Amino acid sequence: MGVEPVGSSSETAAQDDGVWMSACSFTIFTMTSGFGLLECGRVSAKDEVNVMVKNVVDMIFGGLAYWVAGFGLTFGSYAEWSNPFVGVGDFFFDPERNDTANFNEKGLSYTMFIFQMSFATTTSTIVSAGMAERIHLKSHCFISFFITLVHAVSGHWVWAREGIFRRIGVIDSAGCSCVHLVGGVSGLVATLYLKPRRHRFGSNGNKNISDPTKAILGFFMLWWGWVAFNTASNYAVSHKQWTEGTRSAVATIMASAGGGIVTVVISRVTMRKIEIDMLIDGMLASLVSTTAGCLFYTPWQAIAVGSIGSAAALSIYPLTEWAHIDDPVGIIPVHVVGSFWGMIAPSIFLNKDYGLDTNQVTNDMQLNGLLYGGGFTLLGLQTLAACVIALWSAVCSFVILYTLQHSPIGLRISKYDEELGADLREHGLSGQNIQSYRVEKKITAQQLSAVMTTIVRWRIKARLGAQRRKRLAELTAAAREDGMQQQGYGGNAFEMRLVRRRQSNAAVNEAHTSAA
Amino acid sequence: MGVEPVGSSSETAAQDDGVWMSACSFTIFTMTSGFGLLECGRVSAKDEVNVMVKNVVDMIFGGLAYWVAGFGLTFGSYAEWSNPFVGVGDFFFDPERNDTANFNEKGLSYTMFIFQMSFATTTSTIVSAGMAERIHLKSHCFISFFITLVHAVSGHWVWAREGIFRRIGVIDSAGCSCVHLVGGVSGLVATLYLKPRRHRFGSNGNKNISDPTKAILGFFMLWWGWVAFNTASNYAVSHKQWTEGTRSAVATIMASAGGGIVTVVISRVTMRKIEIDMLIDGMLASLVSTTAGCLFYTPWQAIAVGSIGSAAALSIYPLTEWAHIDDPVGIIPVHVVGSFWGMIAPSIFLNKDYGLDTNQVTNDMQLNGLLYGGGFTLLGLQTLAACVIALWSAVCSFVILYTLQHSPIGLRISKYDEELGADLREHGLSGQNIQSYRVEKKITAQQLSAVMTTIVRWRIKARLGAQRRKRLAELTAAAREDGMQQQGYGGNAFEMRLVRRRQSNAAVNEAHTSAA
Amino acid sequence: MGVEPVGSSSETAAQDDGVWMSACSFTIFTMTSGFGLLECGRVSAKDEVNVMVKNVVDMIFGGLAYWVAGFGLTFGSYAEWSNPFVGVGDFFFDPERNDTANFNEKGLSYTMFIFQMSFATTTSTIVSAGMAERIHLKSHCFISFFITLVHAVSGHWVWAREGIFRRIGVIDSAGCSCVHLVGGVSGLVATLYLKPRRHRFGSNGNKNISDPTKAILGFFMLWWGWVAFNTASNYAVSHKQWTEGTRSAVATIMASAGGGIVTVVISRVTMRKIEIDMLIDGMLASLVSTTAGCLFYTPWQAIAVGSIGSAAALSIYPLTEWAHIDDPVGIIPVHVVGSFWGMIAPSIFLNKDYGLDTNQVTNDMQLNGLLYGGGFTLLGLQTLAACVIALWSAVCSFVILYTLQHSPIGLRISKYDEELGADLREHGLSGQNIQSYRVEKKITAQQLSAVMTTIVRWRIKARLGAQRRKRLAELTAAAREDGMQQQGYGGNAFEMRLVRRRQSNAAVNEAHTSAA
Repeated sequence: MGVEPVGSSSETAAQDDGVWMSACSFTIFTMTSGFGLLECGRVSAKDEVNVMVKNVVDMIFGGLAYWVAGFGLTFGSYAEWSNPFVGVGDFFFDPERNDTANFNEKGLSYTMFIFQMSFATTTSTIVSAGMAERIHLKSHCFISFFITLVHAVSGHWVWAREGIFRRIGVIDSAGCSCVHLVGGVSGLVATLYLKPRRHRFGSNGNKNISDPTKAILGFFMLWWGWVAFNTASNYAVSHKQWTEGTRSAVATIMASAGGGIVTVVISRVTMRKIEIDMLIDGMLASLVSTTAGCLFYTPWQAIAVGSIGSAAALSIYPLTEWAHIDDPVGIIPVHVVGSFWGMIAPSIFLNKDYGLDTNQVTNDMQLNGLLYGGGFTLLGLQTLAACVIALWSAVCSFVILYTLQHSPIGLRISKYDEELGADLREHGLSGQNIQSYRVEKKITAQQLSAVMTTIVRWRIKARLGAQRRKRLAELTAAAREDGMQQQGYGGNAFEMRLVRRRQSNAAVNEAHTSAA
Repeated sequence: MGVEPVGSSSETAAQDDGVWMSACSFTIFTMTSGFGLLECGRVSAKDEVNVMVKNVVDMIFGGLAYWVAGFGLTFGSYAEWSNPFVGVGDFFFDPERNDTANFNEKGLSYTMFIFQMSFATTTSTIVSAGMAERIHLKSHCFISFFITLVHAVSGHWVWAREGIFRRIGVIDSAGCSCVHLVGGVSGLVATLYLKPRRHRFGSNGNKNISDPTKAILGFFMLWWGWVAFNTASNYAVSHKQWTEGTRSAVATIMASAGGGIVTVVISRVTMRKIEIDMLIDGMLASLVSTTAGCLFYTPWQAIAVGSIGSAAALSIYPLTEWAHIDDPVGIIPVHVVGSFWGMIAPSIFLNKDYGLDTNQVTNDMQLNGLLYGGGFTLLGLQTLAACVIALWSAVCSFVILYTLQHSPIGLRISKYDEELGADLREHGLSGQNIQSYRVEKKITAQQLSAVMTTIVRWRIKARLGAQRRKRLAELTAAAREDGMQQQGYGGNAFEMRLVRRRQSNAAVNEAHTSAA
Repeated sequence: MGVEPVGSSSETAAQDDGVWMSACSFTIFTMTSGFGLLECGRVSAKDEVNVMVKNVVDMIFGGLAYWVAGFGLTFGSYAEWSNPFVGVGDFFFDPERNDTANFNEKGLSYTMFIFQMSFATTTSTIVSAGMAERIHLKSHCFISFFITLVHAVSGHWVWAREGIFRRIGVIDSAGCSCVHLVGGVSGLVATLYLKPRRHRFGSNGNKNISDPTKAILGFFMLWWGWVAFNTASNYAVSHKQWTEGTRSAVATIMASAGGGIVTVVISRVTMRKIEIDMLIDGMLASLVSTTAGCLFYTPWQAIAVGSIGSAAALSIYPLTEWAHIDDPVGIIPVHVVGSFWGMIAPSIFLNKDYGLDTNQVTNDMQLNGLLYGGGFTLLGLQTLAACVIALWSAVCSFVILYTLQHSPIGLRISKYDEELGADLREHGLSGQNIQSYRVEKKITAQQLSAVMTTIVRWRIKARLGAQRRKRLAELTAAAREDGMQQQGYGGNAFEMRLVRRRQSNAAVNEAHTSAA
């Protein structure tokens, strides 16, 4: 493997590293569900289920792609083909092919695979967020598959020992560039290519957020997952490397605390309220900001990195709105801006003394950041890597999208389908505003007539009921009129409004009644 | 203990194994909430809360049963009573009774208990899914208790060192037979015994799915939990056994990727859409398929096992529909078909070389599958075990159900109660169609009159308010006509917006009414 | 550090302890989301999102407070300032300040920080539950910050080696007093200080529970988190300490099983149903009951402790209702009653032989409980600690609340705002009864006219649609009248009942209107 967990020399070390990385990958997988919830809470209700399904599909097709070629493109280890640009080997991943006797090596190989796969599938999930509500599910499957490979190639550059960027000293422990930047830029390209959702901009434009509670729950799941994501990014606990991991965990939490406070203040000052979109995006941006240098940040540095990340992310909001870029789940502030800053941050804050003397996974060149006298070398390297990887993913995702659009598969759903919503179109669910979903079947003539009969019967009953109630009300009203005037009632405009709302609800219910 | 974690010889090994299994059991417990969500999203909305409560109750009564006798029936270790059919000893589990000085042994004992309990309570949860929406909560408590013991006995057969099936060479590392098959068959018997839910079949029949998003979230939680479930099924990480665990984790994920693709294709081809029920059941079936041989599968084998499992599970759909078997949460395809195939699969794919030379937990007899020249021995053994355990659980669950039905406790709720829904009946919640649940109290005569008075008062106020607003609106409209064009519009902007929003909501609802 | 993980002497021991505690802290953090869901499911729907945001804010401001001073106040280690009352040192936590070379010590320091922080932020979350639905978000931020420090000081008393209560022999491994009691008492003071929510008591009073499914899901998340919370409370796995941890895990689960059965029985007997509030509170109380002595309880002891805890908690219900104490999420039964009993329980059940000979973290004085001949010493100590800490947190939280109320920040929101709901007020969401939330913008004149046009257009369409359907229905009705009588209509009792149900729903809605 290109990057082998350090310390695989000793028996116990291999076991400890393997167990730890496996455990962390289990937690990282939960981030997919978190992202699913985050997305589904922030799109309109008519596409909620579809968004969850897309996150399932990301795992399926992303997982397959990673098995077929992804792992090989990043960590493929055929010595004779070793090069800085792309991994070769380990395609159709199967360590049993090689040597069935060396269990430790096999074990670490499996461990790396499951751990890295949990990172890889994250990338395609991010892209899915940019395309929400307007792409065919089948096109989505292809994109999941290919974006995983785009990630894998750039993963080789920054993670593999022979990778071009790792060799020249670029620092990216937890995939700031090859996960978040690739995902973010591809998502940005996709959102530009697909054009905004209908009714998103323009004079009638609006932004639906179907279920903020779900979105926040999803954010929570991402938050906890992120701690594991960053902590395990040095692939090991043996040989004192657990100390880097636990520092990384503290850095992750403190960055989100710093970023959270900045976000709350910005939202409060600019919007006079805590906007849910802003809160989530600001805090996620602070988490993304830590992903390149998490292993090295001390708590105060993490707070600084997170705070700047949040501020930078939120400052892009007016721009995307002005440019009419439809970014349903905030991938531009979070994953483009956040990860650009995340790549730059180590070049300011990195102190090589905070790394271990031996066994460095990510600071091979022993560089220092600006604050610790390292000069501009690291800044240049990090910027270069970020730009190249951004360009790479922009070009690749454009090619994928262009090809798909001009293939029989197609890309964007029809105007009519978009209005109906993907839940109905792709999954046969009756969608928004219908309390209890009903799996749809073809309606037989017999059923149709039964439904019609019921409707008519409802109508009649509803009318009779209304008349009866009206009469009752009038009678009681007459009897009551005096008593009320005595009790008097003050500034009740608000109560009145409540009444009205409930009445209109009652009306709605009645309407449903007849429609049922 | 019947099955003691290997490597308990060495100090560190015991610690490592104990810590790992504890950690995995924490994750496995989350599967109960996952299953709860999965169920509650797939029954009708009027029983949603009840289904969650039943999953709580499964843990409570299942946990108690496991403490009282379950653990003892599986792993009871009184040497003089040791036999292949049932464990004896360790009832009312308490390792402190034995020897308070040997901390390592006590620790491993506690570890096994919590780990195995997380498996045991899964069984009763599966059964609960088959009985959803039509059984008394109190009967459910008894069933949870006793099914846990049914599982425990069959657990002895396949897991305990002296167990009959383990002795003859049957492979079942993660409870394919004694968890999933027992749960599935018992659930099948229960669903047949209880008869379908009202209005499920017939010309007006339909299948409600109250909240597909919840169901998918639940599936996600099961998915991630499953990785831990399979990974830790060799009870150990020491002595290189972590390498089997991590292979198992990769197998689990790859099986679900394979199964997922098959599911998506089948659903797309047969239904022209991705049906949520199908998607979830197909993928869960692929996961169940891995549970017998997960420790041994290489990635491509896992993909094959998962794909075949999904295909087999989905092919049973038309049959259950035709036979009018009401299976609310798909336990027949997932847990009966899936686990039957899961038991067969090792007899095809098992390669004994992939196991460790020493310390095998599950392939004591060093058998090979068909593909690796093992012949039909293993196939025979696995089929035998599956059939015997299926029969055992069918008989036991029939006896339990029959006894309960003919006891004062009863089994199936009344027709009227079923229509009302268990949320209202068992928990006093006003259920479906009421947006905000309200804890119900008995209404006194005093309260009733107060309510009536209020109703009348509201009515009058509403009428007066409507008039006032109308006048106000007319006035303001006239006065504002110019001002609006400039902008101004100070204090009331918010109220106006509220009003307008409500109006537009009403309009939308009306529109839906007509569109429906 | 005041409490240093035992066994930090050896290289591997430090690694093992650090890794385990980090892993457990990741799980403990998920409890914040669990508590958020629990709260948001149990308040009224108009404050649901706000409650989730408050749980985010607890982490942000609580985390910052813990970094600034919390950790230092508990475990601050400046030797010259060491005293039994308050920790001094480690403010603005940064282990790199001290010695960058000793990686093991730094690592354990980071580990303790992240682990203890996960406990600390729990405290402020509990308090937030007591203030739900009626406090300004910005006041909430200040309270989160300061309550974290109140917890930190009492944490020093029971956890730090030189802490006053730890020194005299008080047992509190998992923060029964300094987490749950501090949270509970502060919440009680807050709920008394803030007065009940409007319309909670009185003749029209009622208690809303917006989404019981969410509440149960949240409870589930707390449940699984709790196992980690208790298991890791001895800070270590090395030197056989994992055996205490795993006993603790079993105790936690068994306590909840015992408490669960008691809760189910009590709810069934007193209410004739399983009330969701009761179920959750009873079971959480059983979990809180274990937090002081979890490391020492054998399974049967845990069942006893949990059962008594649940019974005690539920017996307080009538009292709070009678005293008109508005306790939205049951913190009085769970965290006040539960943790008082939790502190007492070890003084009955503690058997010092169940602790390890060396390395005791929590039973330094080698005391026994009543059942094991220890006499009343421990009972006295535990009661003293509970009372002092209750008093401490009552006084502190009163001072915080009083100061805030008399500052420009304020405390309780206005009557009008409370009716509107915090989702609308603080986050600009349209709140309850509006299916799909819509992020609000200022409406321009242009937008306004567009909305009006659409409304008119909808109206016309709706009217036309209604006419069309009416005509169709009449025609079909006429044509069907006979056919129906032939088909014998027996099967249609159901339809009729459905009709009736819907009507009664409409009636209920109307009633709600007037009753509110």
